[in-house]
Amino acid sequence: MDERVTSFSWSSSATSGAVRLGSIATAHGEIRTPAFMPVGTAATVKGLLPGQVRDAGADIVLGNTYHLMLRPGSERVRRLGGLHTFMNWPGPILTDSGGFQVFSLKELSKITEEGATFKSHIDGSKHELTPERSMAIQNDLDATITMVLDECTEHPATHERAKASMERSMRWAARCRDAFERREGYALFGIVQGGVHEDLRKASAEALVEIGFDGYAVGGLAVGEGQDEMFRVLDATVPHLPEDRPRYLMGVGRPDDIIGAVARGIDMFDCVLPTRSGRTGQAFTRRGTVNIRNARHQDDPRPLDETCACSACTDHSRAYLHHLFRCGEMLGPMLLTLHNITMYQDLMAEIRGAIGEERYDAWSSSYLEEFGRGDVDPL
Amino acid sequence: MDERVTSFSWSSSATSGAVRLGSIATAHGEIRTPAFMPVGTAATVKGLLPGQVRDAGADIVLGNTYHLMLRPGSERVRRLGGLHTFMNWPGPILTDSGGFQVFSLKELSKITEEGATFKSHIDGSKHELTPERSMAIQNDLDATITMVLDECTEHPATHERAKASMERSMRWAARCRDAFERREGYALFGIVQGGVHEDLRKASAEALVEIGFDGYAVGGLAVGEGQDEMFRVLDATVPHLPEDRPRYLMGVGRPDDIIGAVARGIDMFDCVLPTRSGRTGQAFTRRGTVNIRNARHQDDPRPLDETCACSACTDHSRAYLHHLFRCGEMLGPMLLTLHNITMYQDLMAEIRGAIGEERYDAWSSSYLEEFGRGDVDPL
Repeated sequence: MDERVTSFSWSSSATSGAVRLGSIATAHGEIRTPAFMPVGTAATVKGLLPGQVRDAGADIVLGNTYHLMLRPGSERVRRLGGLHTFMNWPGPILTDSGGFQVFSLKELSKITEEGATFKSHIDGSKHELTPERSMAIQNDLDATITMVLDECTEHPATHERAKASMERSMRWAARCRDAFERREGYALFGIVQGGVHEDLRKASAEALVEIGFDGYAVGGLAVGEGQDEMFRVLDATVPHLPEDRPRYLMGVGRPDDIIGAVARGIDMFDCVLPTRSGRTGQAFTRRGTVNIRNARHQDDPRPLDETCACSACTDHSRAYLHHLFRCGEMLGPMLLTLHNITMYQDLMAEIRGAIGEERYDAWSSSYLEEFGRGDVDPL
Repeated sequence: MDERVTSFSWSSSATSGAVRLGSIATAHGEIRTPAFMPVGTAATVKGLLPGQVRDAGADIVLGNTYHLMLRPGSERVRRLGGLHTFMNWPGPILTDSGGFQVFSLKELSKITEEGATFKSHIDGSKHELTPERSMAIQNDLDATITMVLDECTEHPATHERAKASMERSMRWAARCRDAFERREGYALFGIVQGGVHEDLRKASAEALVEIGFDGYAVGGLAVGEGQDEMFRVLDATVPHLPEDRPRYLMGVGRPDDIIGAVARGIDMFDCVLPTRSGRTGQAFTRRGTVNIRNARHQDDPRPLDETCACSACTDHSRAYLHHLFRCGEMLGPMLLTLHNITMYQDLMAEIRGAIGEERYDAWSSSYLEEFGRGDVDPL
């Protein structure tokens, strides 16, 4: 095994308590942290051109191993030059392990100590996903950041069940570390599990640090436990992670979730919320969420969010956006996705600015107050 | 009635036989002719941002009165500043009369000498479309170019049936001329009808010229009569239209249809083909049509059309476009629509260039030969 220290590294430029401002160097360029990663499930951030994602301010996108291994197939992606070339995203890409989707298949999947076997939701074909296979697939995809395969414990889970599941995940994490092909500027992240049980989270973090990873994710949250529980688990987990490695909270979340998690020392986030909500007509604005399908927008010439510089807000009115959704026009989801991704990236830029100026607490109070104020008054 | 000569005008910069190169001055800017107008049915060219349509080279887009009168309603569009503001297309817009869609409703519509009554395909609500109402709606929409309401004769139609229908359309054309509110830089176009009957086409053209319009459209073609018949009807119609007014062939067509119609003196075109085909995976390339859904593209790293500068062709491979369609990803229709609209605008630019250089015949032979050659060989 190649034991060179890779050039993948996170460096901090400002800290304030647990809050960290930094930058990750990778083989595919820099990731400014705290970072939000738009989800590009099947090698596309749904409804956006890659250039629009980049122009919105994203440094990195996420791809889903489960979807990509089925279509177009990881070996095909490799033959076509890897995921960066395939989807025309030259920047960093993080791929998940495929586990989350496979475990969501429930009766279509079977889990053993070896790994998972499952039937494709597309054509029923049978597939295997072990720690070793997940590493091979993510290597085919040429992921900048590879995630270990972990068992996604159901929520709620008893201490006994959460412990057994976490311990299996730790054994899988070690197998992933062994199977992962180290390359300069590439990274493998471990994932802390343990449900809502603080002692298990601590044990999981310590087990992962013992194995040694380039970064550490917190998994198994944002599964219905609520924000207070999530923050409590973060408070019990983050102190057990190394200071000098990036920390990634998986599948989170709403702007207020992100702001609270940054306060607890998280550097990276991903969530389908801005893209999925955008497709159904829900926008995230400076003043909270807006359902553009609501009839009160049909005669409103004002922009969706007057503080936003995206083209949905600078070129179009609420009345027009409402009309597009009412007619089922593709441009509606396209514009609202563009807006939501822009809003999330603007949020991250503000977060980074506030940390850099050592005023994160004051900034976050002010932001959350405005975000909670609710939409502008109807005309 | 305001009888000022409007500044709406077509001027020719080069002619060669029937072929004309020119420019239309309007209240909303210039239209270079021959021109292809992308169809923006419900105030959006499906799948494209307005800036993408403009960047592809389009000077003018088309809006559909039928769709817009139902959603969002023409009075709402007027209150919101007109269609240009509403859809953020400051350039020229042509709206159709609504007749074509209403007559397509068949049993949901009833036609009398007065006009049409019909039930909305959306909610069954009852509406009226007379020549006067069509003018009022298109005025609400602030159309740069308004089309007269005509009766769309079914194809095939006997001479007797086509004559009666054309004569009613001529009576409606006169009512439209009376009801149309003339404004500087705006225009009203008459529509020649008469089916495939040359004497009726001549009579219709003469009747319209007698009424007097700012431009003349040829309607009732591209309805299944075939290209030879269409060209024959154009040959029998165009000589009866004024030299100094723009001529618009409605609903046409494929690249070879356009090339042949330009040779016969047509200046303007519209068709859903590039947009609709794009959404279903059919691309128009320099070498004919390509169905990107075909499995032969799944490993092909080559661009869709190596001669095209659109982002579908410069940023992505056939394999990726195929993957997007296979997965039902929005980005597939977005990219193929962008490509097809770019291809059509590039075609028009080449047509204009060839006319300007007095080599239209040679150019068109060469273009049609390449277009007929078929797609590149599989890998």
